[in-house]
Amino acid sequence: MTTELRAAALEVGVRLGDVDGNLERLRSALERGAASGAHLLVLPELATSGYVFDDAAEAAQAAVTRDDPRFDALRAALPEGVVAVFGYLERDGDRLYNSAVVITRDATIGQYRKAHLWDREREIFDVGDTAGAVFDTAVGRLGVAICYDNEFPEVPRALALAGADVLALPVNWPLVPRPDGEHAPEIIQAMGSARSSRLPTVIADRAGSERGVRWTGGTVVIDGDGWIAAVPDDGIAVADLRLSPGDKSLNPRNDLFGDRRPDLY
Amino acid sequence: MTTELRAAALEVGVRLGDVDGNLERLRSALERGAASGAHLLVLPELATSGYVFDDAAEAAQAAVTRDDPRFDALRAALPEGVVAVFGYLERDGDRLYNSAVVITRDATIGQYRKAHLWDREREIFDVGDTAGAVFDTAVGRLGVAICYDNEFPEVPRALALAGADVLALPVNWPLVPRPDGEHAPEIIQAMGSARSSRLPTVIADRAGSERGVRWTGGTVVIDGDGWIAAVPDDGIAVADLRLSPGDKSLNPRNDLFGDRRPDLY
Repeated sequence: MTTELRAAALEVGVRLGDVDGNLERLRSALERGAASGAHLLVLPELATSGYVFDDAAEAAQAAVTRDDPRFDALRAALPEGVVAVFGYLERDGDRLYNSAVVITRDATIGQYRKAHLWDREREIFDVGDTAGAVFDTAVGRLGVAICYDNEFPEVPRALALAGADVLALPVNWPLVPRPDGEHAPEIIQAMGSARSSRLPTVIADRAGSERGVRWTGGTVVIDGDGWIAAVPDDGIAVADLRLSPGDKSLNPRNDLFGDRRPDLY
Repeated sequence: MTTELRAAALEVGVRLGDVDGNLERLRSALERGAASGAHLLVLPELATSGYVFDDAAEAAQAAVTRDDPRFDALRAALPEGVVAVFGYLERDGDRLYNSAVVITRDATIGQYRKAHLWDREREIFDVGDTAGAVFDTAVGRLGVAICYDNEFPEVPRALALAGADVLALPVNWPLVPRPDGEHAPEIIQAMGSARSSRLPTVIADRAGSERGVRWTGGTVVIDGDGWIAAVPDDGIAVADLRLSPGDKSLNPRNDLFGDRRPDLY
C-alpha cells in the first residue's frame, strides 16, 4: 500500500552558543513547517547549539540534557500528527553527544546519538552505540541518522532493511569544492543510497557560515527514486513523498531487497 | 604511495548475435584503447553477443566458452602491461552466464559471473557465486562487477574492503527517465559508491539501441572522489586516475574505512 507523506526540511538561523535564542528559532521553524502541511519536519544537526566550538569546554556551555524542560515549547508548536526531528548538543553526566531527537506534540518518540564523528567532533563528543536508529511514528517507520553517518553506505542500507520508510538526516555540511554543475557530494551519496533502498531522505543543512566555516546549504528532500523532490524556497523545502512500506519491487522479476545476495557479502 | 593509472572506457558497436563480428570490433576497440596510452581498458557487458535475446535458446547460439580460442586475438591486441576487461556470454556445459574476463597479452587473469541478474536475464542465465571479484593485476588490485551488481551498495563496498584499487564495470544500461540536468541514476549510484570507498570506477556502457531497447550511453570514468573524470569523445573516455592503495584517509582524524563501525552493522 502506497501512502503519501508531505515532508519539510527547514533551514534555521542557528547562532553559536545561543541556546535560548536557537530554541526560539527552532520553535518558529517548526511552526512554519507545520503551516506548510508537512507531517514530517526535519531541522539541522546541533541546531540548539551551533557547531564550530573551540573545544569541549566551550561546547559543554551550550549542552542540554535530553529531558530539558525547554523542549516542551518545541513539542507544543507541533499540531497533532506531526513528527519532528532535530539535532541537539546533549550532555549526559560528564559526556557530550551529537544527538537527534524525534518529537511529537504529545511525546518524545526517540533519541539517537551520532555514531560516526567528523574531524574535531572527536575531541568533543562520545560516539553513540547504534548506527542510526528506526522509530515507529505516526508518519511511518522513521529512520534517523546524522550527517557523516550517511556517508557510510552501510547506514542507510541497514536502516532501510530494518524497515525505515523514510530517513530524517540532520546535517552540518562544511562546503567543499565540487565541479561546476554537480550537486554537493554528500547529496550525490544520499541520492544513491535513497535509490538503492527506495528510502526517501529528508536533509536539513545549515546555510551561511559560522566562525569562518561556510556551510553547503544542502537542505533537500530526496524521493525514493533518488531524485531531488524539493530544495529550499525561502528556507523551507517541501515535497510530497510516496512511501511504500515493505515494497521494494522494481518490475515483476526484480526487487531491491529480494535480489540481494546476503550469503555473498 | 599514490600511483597514476590511465584508464579508458570504450563504446563498442555490438551487434546482436554476431559473435565473430563483435570479436573483431572488440579487438579494434582494444587497439584503440591501447593507443590512448591507457593501461586499463574496459568494454561493455555481453560485448561478444549483444543483450536483447528473445530467450535462452537464442542466447545459447551466441555463447562462447571461457577458453574460446578466438579470445587469443583479443589478447594479442594488447601491449605489454595493459589490462583489459570485457563482458561476454559464457556457456559452461548446459548453463549460460553473464560473465566478464580480465585479460593481458600473456594471460587470462580472472573470470567473473554476474551475481545480480536484471529482469529477463533470469530466464537466460545462471547466477555467479561471488558478488564481484578482485584480481591482482599489473595495474593494481582490480575489482570487477557487472551492471546491476553495482546498484547493491554492498558490492562496491565489499570489493573496496577486499583491497580493490579501481573497479571495472561493464554494463548494458537500458535508458530510463531522469530529470533534466541529472546524470543517469546508475551513474549517480556509482559516483556515490566511488566516493564512499575511494574506489575509482571505469564504466563501459552501450550506446544506440538494440531490438527497441535504447541504451543510456553512460560510458564514464569516475575518480576516487566520486567525480566524473571523463566521458566519451568519439567512443572513448580516457582519464588519469590517482590510485592510493590502502589509503582511505580524509584528514588527520578521519578515514573512510577506519571510521566504520562494523560492530554496529
